[in-house]
Amino acid sequence: MQYSYGMDDSGTPLYLAVAQDMAALIHSGALKPMERVPSVRLLARQRRVSITTAVASLRELEQRGLIEARPKSGYFVARRRPAPEPPAQVELPRRARLAGTQAILKRLADASLTPGIARLGQALPDPALFPEAALRACLARVARRDPTLLGEYPVRMGGSLALREQIARHYAHVGLALPAEELIITNGCMEALTLAMRVVTAPGDTIVVESPSYFGMLQIAESLGVKVIEIPSHPRDGLHIQALRELLSGKAGRDVRAVAITANFSNPNGSCMPVARKRELVKLCGEFDVVLIEDDVYGDLQFDGARPLPCKAFDRDGRVLLCSSFSKSLAPGARLGFIVPGRYRDMLRAAKHMISGATPLLQQEMLADFLQSGRYERHLRRMRRALSQQVMQLSQCVQDAFPEGTRLTQPEGGFVLWVELPSGIDTLALHEDAVRLGLDYVPGALFSASGRYANCLRLNAGYAVTPATETAIRRLGQLFQSRLAPAPRRAPERTR
Amino acid sequence: MQYSYGMDDSGTPLYLAVAQDMAALIHSGALKPMERVPSVRLLARQRRVSITTAVASLRELEQRGLIEARPKSGYFVARRRPAPEPPAQVELPRRARLAGTQAILKRLADASLTPGIARLGQALPDPALFPEAALRACLARVARRDPTLLGEYPVRMGGSLALREQIARHYAHVGLALPAEELIITNGCMEALTLAMRVVTAPGDTIVVESPSYFGMLQIAESLGVKVIEIPSHPRDGLHIQALRELLSGKAGRDVRAVAITANFSNPNGSCMPVARKRELVKLCGEFDVVLIEDDVYGDLQFDGARPLPCKAFDRDGRVLLCSSFSKSLAPGARLGFIVPGRYRDMLRAAKHMISGATPLLQQEMLADFLQSGRYERHLRRMRRALSQQVMQLSQCVQDAFPEGTRLTQPEGGFVLWVELPSGIDTLALHEDAVRLGLDYVPGALFSASGRYANCLRLNAGYAVTPATETAIRRLGQLFQSRLAPAPRRAPERTR
Repeated sequence: MQYSYGMDDSGTPLYLAVAQDMAALIHSGALKPMERVPSVRLLARQRRVSITTAVASLRELEQRGLIEARPKSGYFVARRRPAPEPPAQVELPRRARLAGTQAILKRLADASLTPGIARLGQALPDPALFPEAALRACLARVARRDPTLLGEYPVRMGGSLALREQIARHYAHVGLALPAEELIITNGCMEALTLAMRVVTAPGDTIVVESPSYFGMLQIAESLGVKVIEIPSHPRDGLHIQALRELLSGKAGRDVRAVAITANFSNPNGSCMPVARKRELVKLCGEFDVVLIEDDVYGDLQFDGARPLPCKAFDRDGRVLLCSSFSKSLAPGARLGFIVPGRYRDMLRAAKHMISGATPLLQQEMLADFLQSGRYERHLRRMRRALSQQVMQLSQCVQDAFPEGTRLTQPEGGFVLWVELPSGIDTLALHEDAVRLGLDYVPGALFSASGRYANCLRLNAGYAVTPATETAIRRLGQLFQSRLAPAPRRAPERTR
Repeated sequence: MQYSYGMDDSGTPLYLAVAQDMAALIHSGALKPMERVPSVRLLARQRRVSITTAVASLRELEQRGLIEARPKSGYFVARRRPAPEPPAQVELPRRARLAGTQAILKRLADASLTPGIARLGQALPDPALFPEAALRACLARVARRDPTLLGEYPVRMGGSLALREQIARHYAHVGLALPAEELIITNGCMEALTLAMRVVTAPGDTIVVESPSYFGMLQIAESLGVKVIEIPSHPRDGLHIQALRELLSGKAGRDVRAVAITANFSNPNGSCMPVARKRELVKLCGEFDVVLIEDDVYGDLQFDGARPLPCKAFDRDGRVLLCSSFSKSLAPGARLGFIVPGRYRDMLRAAKHMISGATPLLQQEMLADFLQSGRYERHLRRMRRALSQQVMQLSQCVQDAFPEGTRLTQPEGGFVLWVELPSGIDTLALHEDAVRLGLDYVPGALFSASGRYANCLRLNAGYAVTPATETAIRRLGQLFQSRLAPAPRRAPERTR
């Protein structure tokens, strides 16, 4: 085996490896504060490294504040600084921290638990919009019918055959033929997307996402060490196909393994790709041998006309991995999703087995029972009407309250609004203030891997606008306004 | 870096590495059916291996049916057998294949669906051993009590507080204090283990496992690009601590990030570490700053005496990640597990969010209700009695039927038996025959990352031994016997 000069076996530069070992000695207390550190010469000899490397190691430790140089005496272990944290925490040397997006998402999750807050953050409909009583009745029925549902480990890794058949039937009505046996039921769409990306990519690969893009997709890519290229998405028609073609034709296109999009009512910009564009996208993916990962969770929620086709409908060679769930349209609490695996079936099943084992059957049979009864369509009709109205209400409310120059999407399905504020407003920085004003939103920055959309935000229209929501939005508008104008000092006049 | 003689860089025996390369040439078509294969001498020269190794490689290929010996002419690529698949499948150029363990596991899953088969394969108890009626009643009760369980997306990423409190209470009775709020509920223990390993390691890191080791652990490591070092585990006392200490003290120990074990009734060898050894293990992990991932799914299933403590009980600095589930002891169909995250809490929650989102609340509230009623202990007492008897029965049955020289564990908890057959019997090769004889088992090879245990197998004692099981086991014993003795030609006499 060959190693580059200056690396240890694991590929760490030698000077860093030495520094890390020294740091460990210091942290463990083997080298105590104010104790003398081995000299450059001694260190070089002890560790069998060059003088240059030994010097670099000591510099590294000095930079980290672990050792201090004293004139003409060499290096000493630094005095320990008074710890501001309680001792219990200080003793946890490798306590993992959240960085970046994760920290924001944690704050969002916490915010959503704030009592009385207007739930404009997470993209979730009001539970009252779901047919819970009917679902509960289905649950009771299937539990009676098959008493082993709880005691039996689900043997079929793909999930309940009954549910898979119902999903296939549903898509058949839409105009898409799916082989029921191929479907794999998952723990929500997040797991489906995780599995899809995991099976298709290796660390260091690249995927293309639309921009703005669902942050979950960006996170999954990040967690798998997969790079992301953003291609603009139009708020009405979605992904810019020509831009994608240029990318794939160029040098950067070579590392692209997959395109990951939400073709129907994308999150956050609500775009719905026209049929011709979907067809073109699938064809393009074929030309460049790229997989298409399609998130279809909002597909059933069009406000008018026919249910839009997924890109999967134009798939000829199993390269489209259709991922979806019932979390937006029927039963978020069931946490059931699925993936139509195309040519990755075996690998996806294996990956599913490895990540979480089988998906619980109880809710699957419940949903199968509900779908079989034919009530899903009726439920959807009611839900689409409600969402369409709520989106309109919220949109009106935002237009009235937000500063001049604010732009707003007009989605024709789903239940999120994407708001672009005049530049200069940092929605991430203002999020905590918004929570204090009584409402939650998702800052635009989360929808980009390259720091765009700082002046944007996403609003959930899953709930009807209440007077409290209206008040909170009006206050938020004032907050935004105050950050825009360089304080024209008119307020005092008004209060007189 | 040192390698034992006869291994390549990845630790694969040389003869296998050579055979695999040849197999790849054959599969790719570079070596065509009926074409002559390089001679032993040529192969040895080409690959710079000994004649013995070259011979072993060719034998391996012959055993796999890839090449055929022709008298006095050497080896030739085997004729391809007529393909049973329809042409549509042949045309999928990048159809993902299952390799190695995954292919075996798929066969196992398929085998378990064979009607009437004795379910000695997957480690699952008879559903009749679980309190299904009581669980169903709990389910109905919680669904009535909280009608939003299905319509509301679970906001708390950690899971139901009620369930977390009940789990904490359960462990408190065992003698282990856990902060309920820190617990994270997962989709079964598989997800808990996946999360733990993912958060603690990076690709290229190393973990230590006991040997034999639960194959799920090996798979997760493989899927994350994490290397595995196996440390022997004694069938009674578990992991060999001194061997672990030596490993961690040496050069190979530097890359070790975690030790992953099942301290209580390990799968497959049933060992239960004595308290002193557990304490020593946790201490050792602390000394070398290594995380301990502990799988405790069998912990509640001791046959006698007190419930054994998990290693977590000796954790002082949050370095033990306790993973467990209710799949072995209460409700496999609920697919609920949990992780006590120690100092990785935030990262684990974030990873959980990313992999699958929240875990469904319905079953969580159901289990919380059941646990709260105090019936879990009563259920466990009954279940332990049944399992203890079943293990004894199965053990007796195997001793009567298997060839002389067979060794067998005597577990004091759980419900798997680990069987070591006389060497020369390849349990993986014979698995399909076993299924035809009417029973399923897990071949020993799955429990090692380095090709050990070819002559071992694991049996599930989760079901009572029926006359049909007994017959199947007797037949299997005869099959094994027939592979042992060089065909003493007694069969014809018998049939007369």
